[in-house]
Amino acid sequence: MEMIYKRTAHYHETDQMAIVHHSNYIKWLEEARVYLMNKAGVPYSLMEAEGVLSPVLGVSIEYKRPVLFEETVYIHVEILEYTGVRFNVSYRVTNEDESVLHATGSSKHCFVSKTLRPVSLKKKYVKMHQLFEQVIG
Amino acid sequence: MEMIYKRTAHYHETDQMAIVHHSNYIKWLEEARVYLMNKAGVPYSLMEAEGVLSPVLGVSIEYKRPVLFEETVYIHVEILEYTGVRFNVSYRVTNEDESVLHATGSSKHCFVSKTLRPVSLKKKYVKMHQLFEQVIG
Amino acid sequence: MEMIYKRTAHYHETDQMAIVHHSNYIKWLEEARVYLMNKAGVPYSLMEAEGVLSPVLGVSIEYKRPVLFEETVYIHVEILEYTGVRFNVSYRVTNEDESVLHATGSSKHCFVSKTLRPVSLKKKYVKMHQLFEQVIG
Amino acid sequence: MEMIYKRTAHYHETDQMAIVHHSNYIKWLEEARVYLMNKAGVPYSLMEAEGVLSPVLGVSIEYKRPVLFEETVYIHVEILEYTGVRFNVSYRVTNEDESVLHATGSSKHCFVSKTLRPVSLKKKYVKMHQLFEQVIG
Repeated sequence: MEMIYKRTAHYHETDQMAIVHHSNYIKWLEEARVYLMNKAGVPYSLMEAEGVLSPVLGVSIEYKRPVLFEETVYIHVEILEYTGVRFNVSYRVTNEDESVLHATGSSKHCFVSKTLRPVSLKKKYVKMHQLFEQVIG
Repeated sequence: MEMIYKRTAHYHETDQMAIVHHSNYIKWLEEARVYLMNKAGVPYSLMEAEGVLSPVLGVSIEYKRPVLFEETVYIHVEILEYTGVRFNVSYRVTNEDESVLHATGSSKHCFVSKTLRPVSLKKKYVKMHQLFEQVIG
Repeated sequence: MEMIYKRTAHYHETDQMAIVHHSNYIKWLEEARVYLMNKAGVPYSLMEAEGVLSPVLGVSIEYKRPVLFEETVYIHVEILEYTGVRFNVSYRVTNEDESVLHATGSSKHCFVSKTLRPVSLKKKYVKMHQLFEQVIG
Repeated sequence: MEMIYKRTAHYHETDQMAIVHHSNYIKWLEEARVYLMNKAGVPYSLMEAEGVLSPVLGVSIEYKRPVLFEETVYIHVEILEYTGVRFNVSYRVTNEDESVLHATGSSKHCFVSKTLRPVSLKKKYVKMHQLFEQVIG
């Protein structure tokens, strides 16, 4: 199930090349992920309220075409894999009609408790587990 | 007691005016404050370990001369007032020989518990209170 | 003429106090300012295309009530003064029904050329000048 | 030729998991890269003064162990490949004695003119090209 998160580039996100600084894409991917999980009924804030954190294990981005101040990008976000213990997310950052591909990316995540110990949703948080399975579809 | 915190501007701190974005100065002032408190023997990490947080109540900056990528600034930081419950900090951002004044600023702080309730260092954390009083001198 | 800019706090904007880090408010004020100027018909991108930059001369914020991850704030933004050479902006950050005041702030700005030399809109950019005068009302 | 860039985590870099937010590592890698190029005699600021920009084509990070506020990391940075037109950099983020591996990463870069058109250092900037070749060793 792919979702599309829409985002306009802020002035404070530009650098002296007059393009959005590449580190901000990492923040955008997170925003898209949060958006996806809200839509899927498993908001981060709920997860954290239940004592489950979801740190990033890895992230990878290919920058294709720069994004300028005030340009609006459309981040196509999708959970590709979910094992009950880990999940992978993929991203495509495009313009509105998808004629421009700004970037592609992926990220890997696990679940941990507030003391940062690994947690299995599948075993300990069955309802969240089911919601995740639905997102994969 | 004035301390000087030295800081070089990073590329990711610039914006498309080719100067350090003004929001980063707020981060720099925090870094200078953390530096001061470390030197004064009351590091933030220790305070937080004791359950005391020190949120910012207000901050004010005048921007005089832009800072460019790779320029090094010297942040002159000083606690101006300390009441046991609140404190004020002042800042001057200059170049090395102080011939250029990049910015001046001030910030106001209080102490709170981890649940964000007001805390009096003077009453509940006597040792930290004494260290703060020494910083004022 | 007051405008209201709506903004939801991102995860990457929180700090280890579990509230939005105070430096992010400065970015939010900028976003609100950009929003105001877009609505007023003088978008930053247009100004910069015409060779006019608008750096921040000063900014001041009072933090009243923290903003948490996923909370939506409403930034009430207004240009209070405009002289043809400088302008001042005021801000109030509230929740939706204005029952919670998160922060108040103000900022001061001038106009400069791309080489950072002062520029008078009133003298050199008559059309933009008129638009600014309309924003004041 | 591996260089080591030392960096202490700032308070404003933490998030509500009480660890350094993963997006900041991208900034740290940039800082390490800038450090490396300064040491190698090809500072970014010089490159940009000559009209050469060096955008990021891709970046990839594996997060192994979180970094906490006030912890100091050592970023081992090395240019792995340089073709005259592109280069790849690798990174390892460790503690001082390398007993803790916080993260590993890599990034890909090219050279462009100020109008963002591809540039060959090898053909157009022979001196810089030679310096780069020395960095590879």
